[in-house]
Amino acid sequence: MKITAQANANIALIKYWGKRNLKLNLPLNNSISLTLDKLNTTTTVEFSQKHKNDIFILNNKEENPQKISDHLNIVRKKAKINLHAKVESKNNFPTACGLASSSSGFAALSLAAAKAAKLNLSHQELSILARKGSGSASRSIFGGFSEWEKGQKSLDESSFAKQILAPQDWLDFRIIISVLTQKQKVTSSREGMLKTVLTSPMYKCWLNSINTDLKEMKKAITQKNFSLVGNIAELNCLKMHSTMLTSNPPLLYWLPQTVEIMHAIWNWRKQGLEAYFTIDAGAQVKIMCQKKDIQNVEKKLKSFDIIKTIVCKPGEDAKIINQHLF
Amino acid sequence: MKITAQANANIALIKYWGKRNLKLNLPLNNSISLTLDKLNTTTTVEFSQKHKNDIFILNNKEENPQKISDHLNIVRKKAKINLHAKVESKNNFPTACGLASSSSGFAALSLAAAKAAKLNLSHQELSILARKGSGSASRSIFGGFSEWEKGQKSLDESSFAKQILAPQDWLDFRIIISVLTQKQKVTSSREGMLKTVLTSPMYKCWLNSINTDLKEMKKAITQKNFSLVGNIAELNCLKMHSTMLTSNPPLLYWLPQTVEIMHAIWNWRKQGLEAYFTIDAGAQVKIMCQKKDIQNVEKKLKSFDIIKTIVCKPGEDAKIINQHLF
Repeated sequence: MKITAQANANIALIKYWGKRNLKLNLPLNNSISLTLDKLNTTTTVEFSQKHKNDIFILNNKEENPQKISDHLNIVRKKAKINLHAKVESKNNFPTACGLASSSSGFAALSLAAAKAAKLNLSHQELSILARKGSGSASRSIFGGFSEWEKGQKSLDESSFAKQILAPQDWLDFRIIISVLTQKQKVTSSREGMLKTVLTSPMYKCWLNSINTDLKEMKKAITQKNFSLVGNIAELNCLKMHSTMLTSNPPLLYWLPQTVEIMHAIWNWRKQGLEAYFTIDAGAQVKIMCQKKDIQNVEKKLKSFDIIKTIVCKPGEDAKIINQHLF
Repeated sequence: MKITAQANANIALIKYWGKRNLKLNLPLNNSISLTLDKLNTTTTVEFSQKHKNDIFILNNKEENPQKISDHLNIVRKKAKINLHAKVESKNNFPTACGLASSSSGFAALSLAAAKAAKLNLSHQELSILARKGSGSASRSIFGGFSEWEKGQKSLDESSFAKQILAPQDWLDFRIIISVLTQKQKVTSSREGMLKTVLTSPMYKCWLNSINTDLKEMKKAITQKNFSLVGNIAELNCLKMHSTMLTSNPPLLYWLPQTVEIMHAIWNWRKQGLEAYFTIDAGAQVKIMCQKKDIQNVEKKLKSFDIIKTIVCKPGEDAKIINQHLF
């Protein structure tokens, strides 16, 4: 069977940075994210006897299939099938440069592979499956705002995402992605978070402060209190970067332009334009604002050295977009 | 009596950021610094009946004398004199932009005022006096490398600096100051550290990690192990900035160029050029290297947008440079 699925990337508002179980991608803390309508991965999975090995084509280029094969093995085991697969995947945005391509990537792969293997999985089961490929992918199964629960102990099935607010319930929320570089990051998130957990003296304080952030963020989202969401997200992002920065050797994902835009956003707020930033493991700045302020923010961004801006709204759940019958 | 004293600014290698007693400037942790030969403040203090009020002239401009008067009051009380003073002070470098002008400023003032009031103070007593004006000034009484001890409880006399290594004992150590801006910082160190202590969730982790840094740094300095000094100083600086960054509201003293130079220095090291950075509450980058690499570093810095570079060696103790007899 051959299935094409599509999933949107998500941006964490309360960040995930550190695992308690490397193999299962069990995180050290819950995280909260928004799934974005504009950044997506479209993935086709075909299990067939005609494939002698797993094949992985990303953005029209054949890549080493190891990580994909590992993920397909989980699906094959669950479905009790023994077929190799061809996986074709396309991101409509740059890969591995801090735009959450692994979140949409493993969400789309999980959905397409499960369906192609004729597994009938619930959203929760899909979220668990996606999580094993890339932690943040657990959240891309859901549209809108969702929370990825860390779960208990080493219990694989206890850690999955849940929707907090559906995309149609907060139509005015915007995240503007400002792409500052398309270079792949030197240190992957996977490697970076491992280093941070092992070496940053700030990590304990990060973990100790996270429960308050989660509680306040959930409240802010359900109340659709934009100022509160923006403020908490910005401070939480800075806390994550402060743990990265104090890893040994230090991890600084920011470019000069990243810092320039951070200062600019603080100045805009002083002038009454309400915008907040969040930044992941990469140089890109994601700017949160409300629909009414989009034109003003876009106008202001024109004076910066930005490759591209992408205005995103809350996006939908991961979905099947094609069941190839022939 | 009219006395002119001169003191050098110092740059902390293990940072001071936070007080346990605001009035006495008693710090929450010990700090270690290097006094620099090129950045200095020259201050003349004259106690005289002819002055009806305290007068403070900084860089040829009359300023509000409040902070200076408060400091002179300590000296007047100790010396049992009741005279107003004229204080003339000049920095040979920009003031209040992250170049440690308050360290040399209050060290020079303390020495000149004490001598003008005919107090005969030891280095330790001068260090205590200078500390009450500005914490970091306690270290500028001493040349070379010194440690400012936090002392005990609220005991004023227990917190002062001590020399670890005299300037002539490590002649090859260099700090290149790269001045990126001459704008005064928006948030003073005094205000910034108060905010950080009160609001940063990372502050506790900073304090918990400091004793290891202090111990290793003292060892590295006494062994004149440049690589170790550079590495520990760089990581310690990043830790301080990570506490600033997580204050509420956040404190980010870095400019885009600051980040540009940080990345450059990490690249130089990969290429075999051994240089390390430290950054204080300001945008300026202070680059540590050894005498043999000065030309190479200076050449590389030419491609950056830097107002001025100042190559510093370990500097001398604060000293009297003129006893005005007429």
